[in-house]
Amino acid sequence: MGEPASVDARADALTAGALGGDRRALARLLTAVENRTALAEPALRTLYPKAGRAHIVGITGPPGAGKSTLVSALIGELRTAGRSVAVVAVDPSSPITGGALLGDRVRMQAYADDDDVFIRSMAARGHAGGLASTTGAATAVLDAVGFDLVLVETVGTGQSEVEVAAAADTTVVLEAPEMGDEVQAIKAGLLEVADLVVVNKGDKPGAQRTAAQLRAMLVATGGPAVGRRADADSVDRPRPKRPEVLITTAATGEGVPELIAALDRHRASIAGMDAGPARLARAEAQVWAIVGDRLRDQLHAEALRATTKRTLSEVAAHRLDPYAAADELLARVVGDRSA
Amino acid sequence: MGEPASVDARADALTAGALGGDRRALARLLTAVENRTALAEPALRTLYPKAGRAHIVGITGPPGAGKSTLVSALIGELRTAGRSVAVVAVDPSSPITGGALLGDRVRMQAYADDDDVFIRSMAARGHAGGLASTTGAATAVLDAVGFDLVLVETVGTGQSEVEVAAAADTTVVLEAPEMGDEVQAIKAGLLEVADLVVVNKGDKPGAQRTAAQLRAMLVATGGPAVGRRADADSVDRPRPKRPEVLITTAATGEGVPELIAALDRHRASIAGMDAGPARLARAEAQVWAIVGDRLRDQLHAEALRATTKRTLSEVAAHRLDPYAAADELLARVVGDRSA
Repeated sequence: MGEPASVDARADALTAGALGGDRRALARLLTAVENRTALAEPALRTLYPKAGRAHIVGITGPPGAGKSTLVSALIGELRTAGRSVAVVAVDPSSPITGGALLGDRVRMQAYADDDDVFIRSMAARGHAGGLASTTGAATAVLDAVGFDLVLVETVGTGQSEVEVAAAADTTVVLEAPEMGDEVQAIKAGLLEVADLVVVNKGDKPGAQRTAAQLRAMLVATGGPAVGRRADADSVDRPRPKRPEVLITTAATGEGVPELIAALDRHRASIAGMDAGPARLARAEAQVWAIVGDRLRDQLHAEALRATTKRTLSEVAAHRLDPYAAADELLARVVGDRSA
Repeated sequence: MGEPASVDARADALTAGALGGDRRALARLLTAVENRTALAEPALRTLYPKAGRAHIVGITGPPGAGKSTLVSALIGELRTAGRSVAVVAVDPSSPITGGALLGDRVRMQAYADDDDVFIRSMAARGHAGGLASTTGAATAVLDAVGFDLVLVETVGTGQSEVEVAAAADTTVVLEAPEMGDEVQAIKAGLLEVADLVVVNKGDKPGAQRTAAQLRAMLVATGGPAVGRRADADSVDRPRPKRPEVLITTAATGEGVPELIAALDRHRASIAGMDAGPARLARAEAQVWAIVGDRLRDQLHAEALRATTKRTLSEVAAHRLDPYAAADELLARVVGDRSA
């Protein structure tokens, strides 16, 4: 390669590459987004306005429900229909040693020659809101570069993983029959975020009974998913309708075309909801994460200044109380921003 | 009690009470500090300038080294000498069900009629910097109300607990003989923060050998504690001298007067270090925690505004990128502060 380029120039090159279909450039952009490097901001500023056309589908459920198998089946069926699809798999294990990355490679192998399939693992990072914001940014990138659908696959165990799936346009909650006395998805509180409920492993005994239980449960609780986010008051449009309950056998592909039809119906039902609850949740997660990053950067810069050190010394000597000092430091950060 | 008073009036009453020797008022102030209630700010603003006279002593070490027994022995010996003493015990277990609170009650019982002893547990809270800032504020309160010594007792296992002890004027690292093949305090990296090293349970076989090992280790590593904080460059005065290694048998009181003499010597050696590394560390922890709280409050208020909701809707509709939105929100927070 040539001499080192500026961050903006490198971001422009990667962005142009990704928009032009260069999968390697796309992968590098997603790495920048995930690691919040300096490349992320200029790239997302360019790409974000181009996003908003893809159907973002969250897929979550208890471990063992068959999420990965269903995602593979969905990819196959969507490709048969000529639709492009990207997958963001949120991986709670290490990005290096975790099993999911290996799984990705295996899955990718099947589509190595297909530019209309893209699969990516994201590590489930610790810091609050981090997962939602990086996943939101990654889906925006994949949306902007033109994928018809972006599937966000998460394990429905941690609260933040569930929130990530729930921030999709359409959230699919998976359940397998015979996973215990109780329907697992109900136990985990997953039904609340479901737009579609899928009982997978439909060839196992008990699938029909599990589906019937779920349908009864959804009638009893009044249907439409509610309580999607704590600040749902800002987005008080009702969810379109009571979640459908479908049965699939992902391993054989049975029921998968019907699931895709249901996804399309749900998408049509929310069409025009530009700022619907899920999109608002994705936007909020990204914006507040950036606000947090910027404030942290400014405070860090402030902490290194001689004036700050003097102020802290005054507090250490008990000549200034810590509240007065905090206000001084805040005023300086503010002054910097206005400058 | 009379009609509800304002926060400031209640803070003033509690502060005046605590300064006047009312232990119940002092306990309530410490609860306000620990829970960061609205009472904490006015109370600390009044009390902080009165602090800076007490000798703050951190006591840390691996579990089983006998910290609580040593603290009890120190209290007894200090009281014999007519000196008042407060203890802040950082309790990593639950504040309600944890064993340490019960331990406190038992320990308090012995001094129920002695106004010059005060013992308090603090829960080790999760959020970053939280423990250091609340412990720092609590020691400032106990210092301001006139205790001669404030002992901060922490288990030397978690990084934050060690930092809290290390932010004392004098840090005592405890070790017991025969705790394993290796000296535990060395394994845990505790020696780096020690101003004094105490081998407790001096009546056990191996105490002399452990002390000798520690002395050899301290000579080998060049003596004075270093690397006390990551940002130690701001406070680059050398630690006064290589840590002394003492032997105590806290259960019988043996060696405790010598430990107190060593504490006094260390204190004398740092006299005049108004803004020494430990005091600066305590001040920093408190100030940055307050800065964080204030920014969080402002962002929370901003999040509830109609203008913010409109901005986020624009992002959700992909008409505005999340970076531009973040800058808009930050500018509004800044505007509020300047107003």
